[in-house]
Amino acid sequence: MSLNTFGHLFRVTTWGESHGPALGATVDGCPPGVALAEPMLQHWLDRRKPGQSRYTTQRREDDLVRILSGTFEGRTTGTPIQLMIENTDQRSKDYGEIAASFRPGHADITYWQKYGIRDPRGGGRSSARETAARVAAGGVARAVLADLVPGLRITGYMVQMGRLRADRDRFDPAEIDRNPFWCPDASAAAIWAEHLDDLRKAGNSIGAVIEVVASGLPAGLGAPIYGKLDAGLAAAMMSINAVKAVEIGAGMGAAELSGTGNADEIFMGEDGRPRFSSNHAGGILGGISTGQDVVVRFAVKPTSSILQPRRTITLGGAETEIVTKGRHDPCVGIRAVPVGEAMMALVLLDQFLLDRAQTGGARGPIG
Amino acid sequence: MSLNTFGHLFRVTTWGESHGPALGATVDGCPPGVALAEPMLQHWLDRRKPGQSRYTTQRREDDLVRILSGTFEGRTTGTPIQLMIENTDQRSKDYGEIAASFRPGHADITYWQKYGIRDPRGGGRSSARETAARVAAGGVARAVLADLVPGLRITGYMVQMGRLRADRDRFDPAEIDRNPFWCPDASAAAIWAEHLDDLRKAGNSIGAVIEVVASGLPAGLGAPIYGKLDAGLAAAMMSINAVKAVEIGAGMGAAELSGTGNADEIFMGEDGRPRFSSNHAGGILGGISTGQDVVVRFAVKPTSSILQPRRTITLGGAETEIVTKGRHDPCVGIRAVPVGEAMMALVLLDQFLLDRAQTGGARGPIG
Amino acid sequence: MSLNTFGHLFRVTTWGESHGPALGATVDGCPPGVALAEPMLQHWLDRRKPGQSRYTTQRREDDLVRILSGTFEGRTTGTPIQLMIENTDQRSKDYGEIAASFRPGHADITYWQKYGIRDPRGGGRSSARETAARVAAGGVARAVLADLVPGLRITGYMVQMGRLRADRDRFDPAEIDRNPFWCPDASAAAIWAEHLDDLRKAGNSIGAVIEVVASGLPAGLGAPIYGKLDAGLAAAMMSINAVKAVEIGAGMGAAELSGTGNADEIFMGEDGRPRFSSNHAGGILGGISTGQDVVVRFAVKPTSSILQPRRTITLGGAETEIVTKGRHDPCVGIRAVPVGEAMMALVLLDQFLLDRAQTGGARGPIG
Amino acid sequence: MSLNTFGHLFRVTTWGESHGPALGATVDGCPPGVALAEPMLQHWLDRRKPGQSRYTTQRREDDLVRILSGTFEGRTTGTPIQLMIENTDQRSKDYGEIAASFRPGHADITYWQKYGIRDPRGGGRSSARETAARVAAGGVARAVLADLVPGLRITGYMVQMGRLRADRDRFDPAEIDRNPFWCPDASAAAIWAEHLDDLRKAGNSIGAVIEVVASGLPAGLGAPIYGKLDAGLAAAMMSINAVKAVEIGAGMGAAELSGTGNADEIFMGEDGRPRFSSNHAGGILGGISTGQDVVVRFAVKPTSSILQPRRTITLGGAETEIVTKGRHDPCVGIRAVPVGEAMMALVLLDQFLLDRAQTGGARGPIG
Repeated sequence: MSLNTFGHLFRVTTWGESHGPALGATVDGCPPGVALAEPMLQHWLDRRKPGQSRYTTQRREDDLVRILSGTFEGRTTGTPIQLMIENTDQRSKDYGEIAASFRPGHADITYWQKYGIRDPRGGGRSSARETAARVAAGGVARAVLADLVPGLRITGYMVQMGRLRADRDRFDPAEIDRNPFWCPDASAAAIWAEHLDDLRKAGNSIGAVIEVVASGLPAGLGAPIYGKLDAGLAAAMMSINAVKAVEIGAGMGAAELSGTGNADEIFMGEDGRPRFSSNHAGGILGGISTGQDVVVRFAVKPTSSILQPRRTITLGGAETEIVTKGRHDPCVGIRAVPVGEAMMALVLLDQFLLDRAQTGGARGPIG
Repeated sequence: MSLNTFGHLFRVTTWGESHGPALGATVDGCPPGVALAEPMLQHWLDRRKPGQSRYTTQRREDDLVRILSGTFEGRTTGTPIQLMIENTDQRSKDYGEIAASFRPGHADITYWQKYGIRDPRGGGRSSARETAARVAAGGVARAVLADLVPGLRITGYMVQMGRLRADRDRFDPAEIDRNPFWCPDASAAAIWAEHLDDLRKAGNSIGAVIEVVASGLPAGLGAPIYGKLDAGLAAAMMSINAVKAVEIGAGMGAAELSGTGNADEIFMGEDGRPRFSSNHAGGILGGISTGQDVVVRFAVKPTSSILQPRRTITLGGAETEIVTKGRHDPCVGIRAVPVGEAMMALVLLDQFLLDRAQTGGARGPIG
Repeated sequence: MSLNTFGHLFRVTTWGESHGPALGATVDGCPPGVALAEPMLQHWLDRRKPGQSRYTTQRREDDLVRILSGTFEGRTTGTPIQLMIENTDQRSKDYGEIAASFRPGHADITYWQKYGIRDPRGGGRSSARETAARVAAGGVARAVLADLVPGLRITGYMVQMGRLRADRDRFDPAEIDRNPFWCPDASAAAIWAEHLDDLRKAGNSIGAVIEVVASGLPAGLGAPIYGKLDAGLAAAMMSINAVKAVEIGAGMGAAELSGTGNADEIFMGEDGRPRFSSNHAGGILGGISTGQDVVVRFAVKPTSSILQPRRTITLGGAETEIVTKGRHDPCVGIRAVPVGEAMMALVLLDQFLLDRAQTGGARGPIG
Repeated sequence: MSLNTFGHLFRVTTWGESHGPALGATVDGCPPGVALAEPMLQHWLDRRKPGQSRYTTQRREDDLVRILSGTFEGRTTGTPIQLMIENTDQRSKDYGEIAASFRPGHADITYWQKYGIRDPRGGGRSSARETAARVAAGGVARAVLADLVPGLRITGYMVQMGRLRADRDRFDPAEIDRNPFWCPDASAAAIWAEHLDDLRKAGNSIGAVIEVVASGLPAGLGAPIYGKLDAGLAAAMMSINAVKAVEIGAGMGAAELSGTGNADEIFMGEDGRPRFSSNHAGGILGGISTGQDVVVRFAVKPTSSILQPRRTITLGGAETEIVTKGRHDPCVGIRAVPVGEAMMALVLLDQFLLDRAQTGGARGPIG
């Protein structure tokens, strides 16, 4: 986790700007012998691809990923895997206004202040387009996890749009792929659709909350103190564009609980493994997985690129107004769902490898 | 951020168990020539020290810190600084029950499952006692920051206990040191005191929300993508014992905002520097500091060690009940305040050094 | 320095196989605002390019480098720089024999044993072709160093081929670019030419010693203990294909010296800076640069791909003989010269940034 | 490998100065469940301890190591192991002269120039005393390796003192522990004893070459490119005080070999594993172990602290002479033998864990 690299052992370095010739991810430390081919990665990229409904940006990006290295005859060799996505829709529009003033809520001003130079085309490196590379790399991680942790399932979905929350009593996992919001509550999705139409027409945008769950993870992944599984997940999710908060299990709600209310009591399951009366811990105790579902939520702020004029300053320090024209996501949280899943996959695989290094995968027996 | 080490350039490795002979922190990468002496660190440790009010554990730990290396004639030499705190209150009580069964909400079960061995005395490495070493190391970071970022102020305080929230309209920074809860709202503190007395007598505990603010930080610290300042803060705070959520600026509330409501509009200040109409961003855009206050909040779950019996299992897999006797914090969030400040100091100094390495501290001019 | 990544702050991850579609380097942590364009990198790649004399492989590789990211209008932006070199000469020859048995002296057998899979085409990842990516990345480092350490000069040359040593009394830096061996001793170069012709005709190969010198480096780069400048250089040079030894200053010869003979006595130079009576230390004391020339030497073993049959085993464990046909370098040390220079540049820039982080570039005054 | 930390997964951070209250090593990432107690570490420290013959410094240092954390009931818990050695012989002599001028060949001048401050007492952090902490940490690594790689043997010995080389035809491993030079050639040891007596009486010192061999290491440890096993060994050995060169296998001599002479031809051994006709490669091909003996040599320069006056400068820039009084090693190479062994252990364990992480310990079958 250093500048553009994520992970300790399964290390992903993303590179590339929104409007440069290409972007991608350099994946180092991948276990050898894992079946890997471009369609396996394209599958995940297609889920993130814009322009799939009227609720995401109408930019056309095919986001075709190529594997340039690290495989031989359809299997990983253990050497670096270079994933490249060429930018096909680099519309050579005039970006003079963006270059001359700072869009509120964007990284324009901070990149400028830090580096004294910035690539204004489409936000350059700070564009959410970088997350395409994460999804591609996450696809590699998923392929490896399929070998190493059979039974693991990673599922992301939206649980809140603005003030409108999905109803957990109505959750049906089968619904997630049936609406444009990855929402497991079909009736919430219908309400959100209407709400988002209104916002979109008003040139406005809205925030969202995403939940990502990993089921089937064995106990024992993670580490004490700074290598905690939850600390890794927090960094991973907070590193996604526009994310402002990360919760594990009960999350902020844990502050409202009493000790008796919060305790996940422990029993023996019929399969001879511990089971818990509840999962306020979100599947993690002391930074180490319990074997329960690992549950992470994160809040995505509303897209800062909106059609309503906002006050700002120019590079020269003059006060002015700006309207961010272009094709933007009214709820960027929608497309954050596959990204959150990808980050979960990256964290879990990295932690799996760290654990295998230190313990050899041995586990303390219970019962 | 790897197992027991925090930081990229200012690297802190904490070590030691709750009931071993000593614990401490090995601090590497400290800039040379900084004035440093034990009383400067003791100052911060004394704030975290237990037994200061009836609302924290009555364990007696003097937590006296010694500097074993890395200074000469009262100044840092640029070589590793070893900070050691001897454990004086290692009451040799019988820990047989804890060793034989797993306390719900504690890391007992996950340490056992991962390592196949655990030090049951006082929670061993998973004890909140490890945070004493963080506070000591944070003291070193503060001494360095005093030289490198004059004007920087780091302030932590409690904003919520259970469902009881402090009222921001009543915030008075001077109150923070005047009540046992580090609460800037005196009237909230009074209510909390009563509430916590009830919980303590009932053998129960309660969660809390802590806010840590850094004022006077220059723009330009942090980095894009995985080295984001907010990603670093998220990992830092989530690594603290019992923390279940981290928020930056508007935090989870950002999900409820519209694009117009969320935008921090930009103006020119009279000092020739940008100022903002609001700070939903929490002082960070695109992972890089804006020069506004950096605002982080985190939720601390209620202490899992409570006097009310909880159901659990033994090492042998038998179901049983457990009561965690001993001297515990009814609201462990109280003592998390100095720890959150320490983590903020560690993150900011590390990011300062990373930025100085890459940019030399140069900044893009505005106006 | 972890698998395929080199460096702490200026981090280079190389990727790609000899006969894949492309190879390259992902450069992270580059300072912003540095002038950078493809011809600046191509300059160094052309020096390494094969087929320039009859003493290097006759493979045709144009080694054209493209910058895919990290620059805007000819300057670095501080974001990752992706350097890609497409492989144009992927002759689709039959590699069945290489795939079925292990070439002695090559990594064939160890890659197989470690990974259980290997890309046999041209040696795959273990091919010396990977060094093209290092040279490209080294070109970026040189561009940055030109800004940060004006006056720094990095020069590599060959000082020994087989048992034939160049004569230091005849060294003329101007000669280095005038012969195919980068030899500063013109008469040695003439003798080597004859010797190498004989070896080449006999289908044999020969080892070499390369020396790389950095002049104009300020005192104070490096760090104590494991971050020593010489430890970094040792790892850097030893990581180059076929290198079997690394020397700093007097090198192995230091073992033969007495304390009086080895001491580099110190005087004050007329420029008010320390100067030394000699440089047995190779410009490094206690892991930190003295301001003298940094002098590194490394030994390159003879190319293992030779036309004379060698005994080996097959994948199935049968004993056999192998002749490595193809277009090989009779003295692979020749092409290691630009690679050694590139590694020197990578180490020095990384150390410069590390030092700037910790000390801010301040220096203790003398006199 | 960053400042004072060595290793990727088995991470050792040494700390402490020659004349401070204590020094030690913080060991993170240790596998759990390994039997470990202080006498196991003391065994190795006693081999390095000064004052054991008239050929090493007469300083009295008991070098008693304490384990402050990371074990429970005699076994490692997987948490950080703190090893502390108190400095008992901090003779409070006047170090004014050393503080005021720079000893040639020492790090005095570079520490001063880099940091603007240095601890002059006994060389402070640059003292060879730091290697005691390495030996202690190496002892932990050996304990782990005994579990993970049964049959591994690490043996260090001196092969050259000044110009006097041991005769490989006379090597008898049993001799190593029988003379004060760890020399496997008894007759060489006798000659060296006489030679060193003369040097010592003359107030002079001498360099040496140490060889460290690891037998019984499985094939497959190490990694391509920058994670090469030999690159790690080079950094490890070069990080030892006074080391100026590192060789693997044929080392510098590889430069003199032809391709036919250098090839280690491969056969099938009777045990069904590959064997090699020779070991010019030093047990490493392409950065990965072959299963042969891993052979490393390093040159140690003569002690710079000698009784003959050397010319130098003062802090104020005046030219002067200095004589380094005190109790010094006439051949510091002698005490480097246990240190080289310790570094070999650290590298091998770290590489074992890295390999286990990536490949799970699987191996490609031959035959």
